Amino acid sequence: MPIITLITDFGIKDGNVGVMKGVIWSIYPDAKIADLSHLIHPQAVQEAALLTLRSAPYFPENTVHVIVVDPGVGTIRRPLAAQIGKQRYVCPDNGVLTMILERAEREGWPVEFVHLDKSKYWLPTVSCVFHGRDIFAPSAAYFARGVLLNELGSNITDPFRLNIPQPQRTENSLVGEVIYIDHFGNISSNIQEEHLGKSLDNKTAITVKLGGKEIHGMVDTFGARPVGTLIALIGSTGNLIVSLVNGDAATYLKTKIGDKIKVIFNR
Amino acid sequence: MPIITLITDFGIKDGNVGVMKGVIWSIYPDAKIADLSHLIHPQAVQEAALLTLRSAPYFPENTVHVIVVDPGVGTIRRPLAAQIGKQRYVCPDNGVLTMILERAEREGWPVEFVHLDKSKYWLPTVSCVFHGRDIFAPSAAYFARGVLLNELGSNITDPFRLNIPQPQRTENSLVGEVIYIDHFGNISSNIQEEHLGKSLDNKTAITVKLGGKEIHGMVDTFGARPVGTLIALIGSTGNLIVSLVNGDAATYLKTKIGDKIKVIFNR
Amino acid sequence: MPIITLITDFGIKDGNVGVMKGVIWSIYPDAKIADLSHLIHPQAVQEAALLTLRSAPYFPENTVHVIVVDPGVGTIRRPLAAQIGKQRYVCPDNGVLTMILERAEREGWPVEFVHLDKSKYWLPTVSCVFHGRDIFAPSAAYFARGVLLNELGSNITDPFRLNIPQPQRTENSLVGEVIYIDHFGNISSNIQEEHLGKSLDNKTAITVKLGGKEIHGMVDTFGARPVGTLIALIGSTGNLIVSLVNGDAATYLKTKIGDKIKVIFNR
Repeated sequence: MPIITLITDFGIKDGNVGVMKGVIWSIYPDAKIADLSHLIHPQAVQEAALLTLRSAPYFPENTVHVIVVDPGVGTIRRPLAAQIGKQRYVCPDNGVLTMILERAEREGWPVEFVHLDKSKYWLPTVSCVFHGRDIFAPSAAYFARGVLLNELGSNITDPFRLNIPQPQRTENSLVGEVIYIDHFGNISSNIQEEHLGKSLDNKTAITVKLGGKEIHGMVDTFGARPVGTLIALIGSTGNLIVSLVNGDAATYLKTKIGDKIKVIFNR
Repeated sequence: MPIITLITDFGIKDGNVGVMKGVIWSIYPDAKIADLSHLIHPQAVQEAALLTLRSAPYFPENTVHVIVVDPGVGTIRRPLAAQIGKQRYVCPDNGVLTMILERAEREGWPVEFVHLDKSKYWLPTVSCVFHGRDIFAPSAAYFARGVLLNELGSNITDPFRLNIPQPQRTENSLVGEVIYIDHFGNISSNIQEEHLGKSLDNKTAITVKLGGKEIHGMVDTFGARPVGTLIALIGSTGNLIVSLVNGDAATYLKTKIGDKIKVIFNR
Repeated sequence: MPIITLITDFGIKDGNVGVMKGVIWSIYPDAKIADLSHLIHPQAVQEAALLTLRSAPYFPENTVHVIVVDPGVGTIRRPLAAQIGKQRYVCPDNGVLTMILERAEREGWPVEFVHLDKSKYWLPTVSCVFHGRDIFAPSAAYFARGVLLNELGSNITDPFRLNIPQPQRTENSLVGEVIYIDHFGNISSNIQEEHLGKSLDNKTAITVKLGGKEIHGMVDTFGARPVGTLIALIGSTGNLIVSLVNGDAATYLKTKIGDKIKVIFNR
């Protein structure tokens, strides 16, 4: 039962996502299609890369994830398909797979990329402005339907990569940055559970600094402190996050993507 | 053909809803999944309770409705599953089923609750912050796939209940309150068709007061008055509603949830 | 594998779209349902007509498109079903099919309309305010399930039509108007590729005027000019559009639906 997921910056009012579904079902009527997000900020490739990293591993093997955040549509940037570990991907070659690819390399998963250069897997007419409809949706439908990766296009080994910022370590601290703000206003950083390591055994000895505020001690979940308290905890994808209990931390702290966040390990 | 519906306050930009679908399909590939709403106001349990009451009865028998509005995630509040009449539910024990349960009691429908305490129906690793993914989605998938309610968890008889406000009756009036404002700005009250009873036989003799305005007479539908007119009518779920024809009544009247609304029966 | 698509102005927070899906699946459990848009501006029939024109042709044959933008719900306006070319439609008789019907007439597609006047294909109880749930969803489910068009209702030949504005031609120019603004702020006009004809062979000789700005020359795609440049191009549905590279042209130019846009053919 092959599944196709969609991540785009198309929004949900214009019908473009629906049109992609029509194209997919015209080629492969049995496809199950799930929307992951269509509210990626316009042209925010790194945001789509993060969402892909967080979502894809929860889907059944060989799910085809279609990611269309594509400021370079109609230019020389290549359209790609890939197998990375147990999941499949179809997207423009603009770095949107960087984070899942880095994870694959850490975990030793098999990785294979092709350049979608076989026009028989596209719509008959390809516009310059909507490859989501004309190239990515049909290619994904054929991929899910059983066409092999190396039939969809020619093998390549040099997909474009984003330069993802890493946290900086000093003797008694880590300095990372804000990489995502969710619907609730929870602030997600690029500091991971594994960066904190055994410091997490003594959560009360950790101080988190963000936006001029200090949070003393980390907690396990939102309800661990009274409503309106600023808290630091490990989020559902293993990142250090800052939240305001039953409130919106990002609005309260006026946080923006890229803001510095500091973790101090007290002795 | 078992259906799973989703009601959450997760929003639609972060991919969390998509992840729940991935988890469901990993366990039960044949599940049909429908989004009811992911724009419940954050932590607004009563709003989710109302949406559940209004939506669930329109689904086929044994549809599993997953409701994740869960400010207490990771604390001692219990995760639940239930059979209420012909529909099934999976949700935290925070009162979100109160309204459908009250209806069941009025109508004499069978009701059964369990505490989801069998970890074999959860994901192998359970975070403290995303039980929608780790407990509710997998439990719903097993429930829809045929696992019996009393296999999913231990029977309980004391689900938490919200205190739902009831309209107050005087000799010639009813005083209720605003419980919902929809996408169009239509204002929904807790005054039901059955509270008005045979007064509805003479709609011209009813006056509705809200936000300092008086509406004389009730109508049957939106197009019954000219554009821009404030009207009172029975909405699609049997509640007294106030609308502005082709406009946004709630913005016009600056209405908030909890505002008083008064119905006067003229002689 | 029959598909049902949904276009409404219901928004996505209130659960009304979900309820329509419940009704459809109660009648026809095998239906595949795709959301095209639920963010049509309230009561904006022409906007829904445009979305229908743009989306429907990409779906498999005999897909049933349900369009519920319905300011006249509960009044004397008729509920309709139609076969237009290879696609099917269910909607109120308020002109929402005008654009696809005009295309059908240009292309010589077969066209057939019925008035949905057979109550056995409705829900047992029909409210005055939610025909999407009570008439259109069940009729669409029966239509997709195999009930013939002329069983659903009585034939009619006089569907209501909107008066769609056409561009005006002078010797060396075309004057059209803005008909749509998309999620990215791209501005779409009623000037089509075919209106421009062989002028497009010499794109550098075209000047586009909108909101007091002049754009000299047309391009093929967004990435053809530097970020922040105002460009004119043919959009994915063959309309002349104005965009700001990686930006929001409509906000930048303060454009509204109905604004004039002028194309000048230089010699």
